[in-house]
Amino acid sequence: MNPQFDSIGRQFVDFYYKAFDENRSTLAALYRPESMMTFEGAQHQGPEAIVQKLVSLPFQKVQHVVTTVDCQPTVDFGVLVMVVGQLKTDEDPIHGFSQTFILKNDGSNYYVLSDIFRLVVHSA
Amino acid sequence: MNPQFDSIGRQFVDFYYKAFDENRSTLAALYRPESMMTFEGAQHQGPEAIVQKLVSLPFQKVQHVVTTVDCQPTVDFGVLVMVVGQLKTDEDPIHGFSQTFILKNDGSNYYVLSDIFRLVVHSA
Repeated sequence: MNPQFDSIGRQFVDFYYKAFDENRSTLAALYRPESMMTFEGAQHQGPEAIVQKLVSLPFQKVQHVVTTVDCQPTVDFGVLVMVVGQLKTDEDPIHGFSQTFILKNDGSNYYVLSDIFRLVVHSA
Repeated sequence: MNPQFDSIGRQFVDFYYKAFDENRSTLAALYRPESMMTFEGAQHQGPEAIVQKLVSLPFQKVQHVVTTVDCQPTVDFGVLVMVVGQLKTDEDPIHGFSQTFILKNDGSNYYVLSDIFRLVVHSA
């Protein structure tokens, strides 16, 4: 277990959404070939496929506003992170989102092993 | 990687919320001593502490309505699951929630290694 799990997770979240909102093509550095992203139900693997998906999203301006961040230590000094927040894109209505990450350490840096993203849209 | 990750995750979600809504004291069987639950920001570890927290929640009737379930295979044949849904308790207003699980296999059964739960309440 990693005693720093909470600060690692929170620092990651700050860094990730800042990079996403400024220039999401830079996020490739946070993924490895084994990394998986499930984005609105579609699976993508590896930095190229993941960032290609993110860059292809049809908005110009984007801002993630984080509501809650919960971190938990997990196996192999990993950190499980669940984020609840709001997403503002261009002039669209604000949407809630939920995103989960598993962060792993490759010896010197943390990278994203697992990434699941969902807009929160309830039918009722 | 576990090729059955999606059906394992979805079956777990069905089972978990049905058991929660009918008699949440039965959920102890799904946790192990190393299991962690972060519930609205508070950490609990092990089946006794986790179920004590769940049983102490101040409502009689509860219903989880699942909106989306996303599953991803993870290390050691584990399954990462993120759920977005709505929670109806007693006669309270409906709340959105987000919950993440890491399921692990102990050789014969899946159990919950990690559990993070948040009601979705945005300030804006």
